[in-house]
Amino acid sequence: MYTVTVRDHMMIAHSFKGEVFGPAQRLHGATFVVDVEFRRPELDADGIVVDIGRAGDTLKRLLAEINYRNLDEVPAFAGKNTTTEFLARHVFSGIVAAIGAGELGPGASAVESLKVTLHESHVASASYEGRVRAAA
Amino acid sequence: MYTVTVRDHMMIAHSFKGEVFGPAQRLHGATFVVDVEFRRPELDADGIVVDIGRAGDTLKRLLAEINYRNLDEVPAFAGKNTTTEFLARHVFSGIVAAIGAGELGPGASAVESLKVTLHESHVASASYEGRVRAAA
Amino acid sequence: MYTVTVRDHMMIAHSFKGEVFGPAQRLHGATFVVDVEFRRPELDADGIVVDIGRAGDTLKRLLAEINYRNLDEVPAFAGKNTTTEFLARHVFSGIVAAIGAGELGPGASAVESLKVTLHESHVASASYEGRVRAAA
Amino acid sequence: MYTVTVRDHMMIAHSFKGEVFGPAQRLHGATFVVDVEFRRPELDADGIVVDIGRAGDTLKRLLAEINYRNLDEVPAFAGKNTTTEFLARHVFSGIVAAIGAGELGPGASAVESLKVTLHESHVASASYEGRVRAAA
Amino acid sequence: MYTVTVRDHMMIAHSFKGEVFGPAQRLHGATFVVDVEFRRPELDADGIVVDIGRAGDTLKRLLAEINYRNLDEVPAFAGKNTTTEFLARHVFSGIVAAIGAGELGPGASAVESLKVTLHESHVASASYEGRVRAAA
Amino acid sequence: MYTVTVRDHMMIAHSFKGEVFGPAQRLHGATFVVDVEFRRPELDADGIVVDIGRAGDTLKRLLAEINYRNLDEVPAFAGKNTTTEFLARHVFSGIVAAIGAGELGPGASAVESLKVTLHESHVASASYEGRVRAAA
Repeated sequence: MYTVTVRDHMMIAHSFKGEVFGPAQRLHGATFVVDVEFRRPELDADGIVVDIGRAGDTLKRLLAEINYRNLDEVPAFAGKNTTTEFLARHVFSGIVAAIGAGELGPGASAVESLKVTLHESHVASASYEGRVRAAA
Repeated sequence: MYTVTVRDHMMIAHSFKGEVFGPAQRLHGATFVVDVEFRRPELDADGIVVDIGRAGDTLKRLLAEINYRNLDEVPAFAGKNTTTEFLARHVFSGIVAAIGAGELGPGASAVESLKVTLHESHVASASYEGRVRAAA
Repeated sequence: MYTVTVRDHMMIAHSFKGEVFGPAQRLHGATFVVDVEFRRPELDADGIVVDIGRAGDTLKRLLAEINYRNLDEVPAFAGKNTTTEFLARHVFSGIVAAIGAGELGPGASAVESLKVTLHESHVASASYEGRVRAAA
Repeated sequence: MYTVTVRDHMMIAHSFKGEVFGPAQRLHGATFVVDVEFRRPELDADGIVVDIGRAGDTLKRLLAEINYRNLDEVPAFAGKNTTTEFLARHVFSGIVAAIGAGELGPGASAVESLKVTLHESHVASASYEGRVRAAA
Repeated sequence: MYTVTVRDHMMIAHSFKGEVFGPAQRLHGATFVVDVEFRRPELDADGIVVDIGRAGDTLKRLLAEINYRNLDEVPAFAGKNTTTEFLARHVFSGIVAAIGAGELGPGASAVESLKVTLHESHVASASYEGRVRAAA
Repeated sequence: MYTVTVRDHMMIAHSFKGEVFGPAQRLHGATFVVDVEFRRPELDADGIVVDIGRAGDTLKRLLAEINYRNLDEVPAFAGKNTTTEFLARHVFSGIVAAIGAGELGPGASAVESLKVTLHESHVASASYEGRVRAAA
């Protein structure tokens, strides 16, 4: 299995509902350094997993939709705790949709699975991984 | 699959038996930066894999048992080479036991598998991964 | 010159006033990984720059005052842009005060200068450095 | 499953053929920081996955063959785009051959699979993973 | 003293003249992860050292001039060994010129000094630091 | 001012005397990732600060003298707490002596100062910096 991983980041505010979150129930924020790993069993004719330029552009576009925002006020997240795990899945779904729409080029349709990891500090991270086809 | 990873560290002395270890047969030491990754297929009602506060506390408690110690004198490790690989398994077993004892909260019972990685320097690491249930 | 550096982090929300900040004028947030470097020309009788345990405790106490907060609502910061640079100076002042109050032990009075660095992402950071005595 | 990972690096020049590569069609270069992860289900009698000294020596020998070279002029790569993905597979094949030749010691024959990751910058990497036996 | 640091990277080919370089006399390449640190004694009215957006844009523009190039063929570098140290100075001079031309905004004229660091691998880096005015 | 930095590591055991050290009074250990920064105002005729190959070899030789050792039993350290700060100075002195002995080549005599940093974990480090001539 081959993989390619690209990295970018976003800086958001949010709060959580639930006693388990302790002080994080207050409005606070986070920098998320985001890694997206693309996986496929064979390379394409150019010798790549995915067009790394397009992959980076798509990631930047997806993050820009929520970057510098208070996620408590983003309609699509209403009623949800925007935990690191939840946001990893959100980015995953966005990349899957972009692949389906051809945004990463025709070769990206051979990408079998993705792993999206959000690093929230030097001591904590979360991720979501899954197959592209099942999620499309 | 969702994951959450927490990080802490310990600083220990030890020596190894066996020609394969070369100069590491002498009493020496290591800082181990320890990552514990918790994995489960779906999030709980709060939108998390595990209570990250409790996960960090449990890891700190487990490491404290052997932190600032000469592992050659720890009875539980008698007759064993406390290699990075071996210690990764040791931490894994401690986390599995803590989940079983409810130390990470009732939600942690849905954690399917763990991966424990010990970084011994900027150029070497070792890990152990396995299912929680099989190991409990 | 000898130095010792300790690291911790905080997760806050804030917004900025001024066109130069572009989208960061909106309420957003950041994880700041904070390094505090203590400097002195000679070691004490124990062979250290500062009690690293106390140094870490003091940093944690200082960060806890604003951790998991919306800095726009912290009275001490009213009318200020809580930029990464500004917050570096804020932590610097807190450490200087703690040294003056003896919180880091009597040996810490020999610390000549400090450098406080806040990493806001994998591609940006800011710092403030200065002499302890002049700032006390 | 147990793993051990070792790290080294190489510095090469190359160019790519294909419009997808944009400016990387020009002769340019890269530092690749290379991680090789060895995996096996049980430790050997010494308590290790692989002799980490031999593993590091083998990796250094393999990288030395192409280190400080223009890969466009390496006969073995003629007609190929030496992408990060392609080079990850190249290193993988070299480690598999070395295990087969006994270069990593007799215990290494129990290594089931490998993952080779090449970091090309602070924001991009690629990897190849596979079973040792199928590839031997 | 306050600082702000921004990071970007470039991927180039080059060769060196001189026995001291050993195998690096051959055409090879490098990824340089570039940090530019801006320093000034007081913050501006917005509470910043420099407009971090403009600083990043200027760094990207400067690196683009030589990114994905064989530096042996860049006229401005003729007869020079484009060592990591030399390139750190080259980027320094470019940032100084950009400040002088107002590219980083009028506030940047208060920047007193810069430090440019190029990381060439996980085990080696080089830098150049100097005053802005003396170099302008 | 130009700098070049090289990195290596060592793994040692030791214990400390003094209540300030708490549990670190017990025999324990550490991995020290060691950075040595060489500084000089102008480059030599080859365009470098120091022969980076020789610099790395010298650092490796110095660390090998105490690597995989219990520092409590090293005669040269008798009666001393081998703190991270102390060891930074020890490596500094070794590099100064090596420069004086010509081990880094004749060009290294123009190196004005050094900074040696030992990273003992992901959250703590110490350093010693000073002029080469004063220390020679």
